[in-house]
Amino acid sequence: MSQDDPSTTGAAAPAAGFSTSRLEAFSDGVFAIAITLLVLDLNVPEPDSLDGQSLTSALAHQWPAYFAYLVSFLVIGIIWINHHAMCALARRVDRRTLFANLFLLLTVSVIPFPTRLLAAYLTAPHGDAETAAAIYALTMVAMGIAFTLLFLAFTRDARTLHTPVSPEAKRAAIRRFGFGGLCYLATVGLAYVSPVAMLATHAVLAVYYCFDQLAPVRTAR
Amino acid sequence: MSQDDPSTTGAAAPAAGFSTSRLEAFSDGVFAIAITLLVLDLNVPEPDSLDGQSLTSALAHQWPAYFAYLVSFLVIGIIWINHHAMCALARRVDRRTLFANLFLLLTVSVIPFPTRLLAAYLTAPHGDAETAAAIYALTMVAMGIAFTLLFLAFTRDARTLHTPVSPEAKRAAIRRFGFGGLCYLATVGLAYVSPVAMLATHAVLAVYYCFDQLAPVRTAR
Amino acid sequence: MSQDDPSTTGAAAPAAGFSTSRLEAFSDGVFAIAITLLVLDLNVPEPDSLDGQSLTSALAHQWPAYFAYLVSFLVIGIIWINHHAMCALARRVDRRTLFANLFLLLTVSVIPFPTRLLAAYLTAPHGDAETAAAIYALTMVAMGIAFTLLFLAFTRDARTLHTPVSPEAKRAAIRRFGFGGLCYLATVGLAYVSPVAMLATHAVLAVYYCFDQLAPVRTAR
Amino acid sequence: MSQDDPSTTGAAAPAAGFSTSRLEAFSDGVFAIAITLLVLDLNVPEPDSLDGQSLTSALAHQWPAYFAYLVSFLVIGIIWINHHAMCALARRVDRRTLFANLFLLLTVSVIPFPTRLLAAYLTAPHGDAETAAAIYALTMVAMGIAFTLLFLAFTRDARTLHTPVSPEAKRAAIRRFGFGGLCYLATVGLAYVSPVAMLATHAVLAVYYCFDQLAPVRTAR
Repeated sequence: MSQDDPSTTGAAAPAAGFSTSRLEAFSDGVFAIAITLLVLDLNVPEPDSLDGQSLTSALAHQWPAYFAYLVSFLVIGIIWINHHAMCALARRVDRRTLFANLFLLLTVSVIPFPTRLLAAYLTAPHGDAETAAAIYALTMVAMGIAFTLLFLAFTRDARTLHTPVSPEAKRAAIRRFGFGGLCYLATVGLAYVSPVAMLATHAVLAVYYCFDQLAPVRTAR
Repeated sequence: MSQDDPSTTGAAAPAAGFSTSRLEAFSDGVFAIAITLLVLDLNVPEPDSLDGQSLTSALAHQWPAYFAYLVSFLVIGIIWINHHAMCALARRVDRRTLFANLFLLLTVSVIPFPTRLLAAYLTAPHGDAETAAAIYALTMVAMGIAFTLLFLAFTRDARTLHTPVSPEAKRAAIRRFGFGGLCYLATVGLAYVSPVAMLATHAVLAVYYCFDQLAPVRTAR
Repeated sequence: MSQDDPSTTGAAAPAAGFSTSRLEAFSDGVFAIAITLLVLDLNVPEPDSLDGQSLTSALAHQWPAYFAYLVSFLVIGIIWINHHAMCALARRVDRRTLFANLFLLLTVSVIPFPTRLLAAYLTAPHGDAETAAAIYALTMVAMGIAFTLLFLAFTRDARTLHTPVSPEAKRAAIRRFGFGGLCYLATVGLAYVSPVAMLATHAVLAVYYCFDQLAPVRTAR
Repeated sequence: MSQDDPSTTGAAAPAAGFSTSRLEAFSDGVFAIAITLLVLDLNVPEPDSLDGQSLTSALAHQWPAYFAYLVSFLVIGIIWINHHAMCALARRVDRRTLFANLFLLLTVSVIPFPTRLLAAYLTAPHGDAETAAAIYALTMVAMGIAFTLLFLAFTRDARTLHTPVSPEAKRAAIRRFGFGGLCYLATVGLAYVSPVAMLATHAVLAVYYCFDQLAPVRTAR
């Protein structure tokens, strides 16, 4: 499946010899599981604990859980789409890329934790909502850093790409990643002003990332 | 794997350049996880909480959980089969399709939540069973809308299909989707009449959807 | 990926037009998730609830959970291997096969439930251990039936196979499935004699199924 | 997909007739799920149970859970990378390899359990931390044994490999596995000296295993 390709066993180093297909399969698995596990944190109120409240009002009371669920679903989905676009650039990956990818998967698969935290504390008093929101925002900062590192690992060696990425196109892509990263960082501060606004901003940023971040790379090559 | 196909890098827009294989892999993952997570909501009664009741009767008491489990398993399985059939029409997908697909996956991966809700409240008094049933039915309405949008996204650009779908075939398929959607909508009303009948109706609708919804598309082309 | 194969769009019915690859991908996902979810039922004793007992003794006390975990892991793993072998026979699958496969996946993905039940009740008094054991054994009976139905669906239409399976080979395979099914059925009775022996028997039966059940099919063709 | 390859249906035994692709797909699924399920054990403190403590301090108190999470994530990720490298050597797998792989998957998919145990008991008194740490270390010993057995199963029959592995290269690889295994064994002892040091050592060992364990195999052939 991967070692027997004559075009790569010649000049290319054996360490560059992984096909992208298993990287994608494993990553798709982690993305798919992380995005689906989010639903486990939509709690069903215990019938015995309603205290005369209707189910409708008990469910409405849980709005932070739905809000956090939707934003995290959108975020993971968009990362998946962009990961997909990035992998499509490469022909083979080396170990460095596998590790950068593992770091990205760490930040993605941990997302259900800050999501759960936010669902439980978004309306909590005494600064706890701000703490939960800052942890959520910091997770996104880490994810943005991991995504940029992965892009650098993918594009480091032109021989592993389908088509070389020009230095200008690479710089343009990194500038866009950098701008996104700064926005993410700003949401950490925003978390202390308004946890709800922090979460809403991440929904907006996900929509911003919908637009193809790698378009300049493909256009310029 | 995807960008190096000479037949697509010429006339076709680069944005239309995703292969269907990773879309399928990610979707299969989400479908597989959502369908398997359903089992986590089949609760084992605590040995200490049986109060002299036998395990048999404690388990029998949980029949709404088994019923909701079976219907949701069937629904997700059928959506998967129809998703599979739809993807088989396409050669490449664009970003629009990726997003429509993400919306469908949102409605699929959330299904364990209304299923759990129904398992806990199907026999509850004071209108709570009706609330739970209506939420279940509304999830199915959203899923039907998402499936129709995905079909429109898939068939929008004839160049991305293996074989063009004729306007008549497309209209016939949309009419069938529309009829299914109306049925789903009717079950929201039915939820307020009889939550159990609502759930049974969704079992029947799933069986209706077993019949190949895309048959007219393939026949007419 | 599947509709553009000229060898199948001619004589073969369009309904027979699914490739086995997505069936395998979805099934692999369900098998992988079901087998991995089993670990969620290995409980960590609450530090506050040890009551002066050491962690070692609290963990040792949970031996039914480990035993049930191991047997279910083995069973799901063996079903996966045999499913793998069966899919390797086929070139294309039809809707009938997709549904038979869905039924098998239902019986596989539900396995964590009887496993959890057995973990909690294997040493319970008043016939509850027997109830839990009988439910476990009945799940295996259902799985055996589903596996046989899937084999029949796979081999029904010789045009969908890589190499035709001779009627004798098919009969030999069905006899072996039938013998396995009878053994499974006998364990339902055994559950009422000794729940522990029932579970041990399933470990032995899984080892029996290790031996290639489809060997006669491949040998005779 | 697998049985129709003329190069293998001749001399090779039919039992050697599995493609590596489904082995990889199933394994990737189990790896991806096990690594992602770890996040379920990062608990969100109940808002009602903070007792005037801030969320920050309640979360800081859970440091053993984060530490265990990170080490287990790293360990599973590295095993996946090395599994990936090992599968790349093979062209076909036999049943023996499927079973050795199943044993490895057992040790991988059980990792969330000792991780959870360690998260709950790493700072517990009365020797319970040591017990939890020893169980964690023993899981890693079992994983190392399984990995070595899988390597032996993969390389046993030269006809199933892309390129034969020389006896020297095989011995070199086994020596490296053996050395790693002894290190793992030593951490069982270390668990009784310092549970925290045991966990830190596994982080270091994972980094050691980052370096390509199969490099001598590929270099020497």
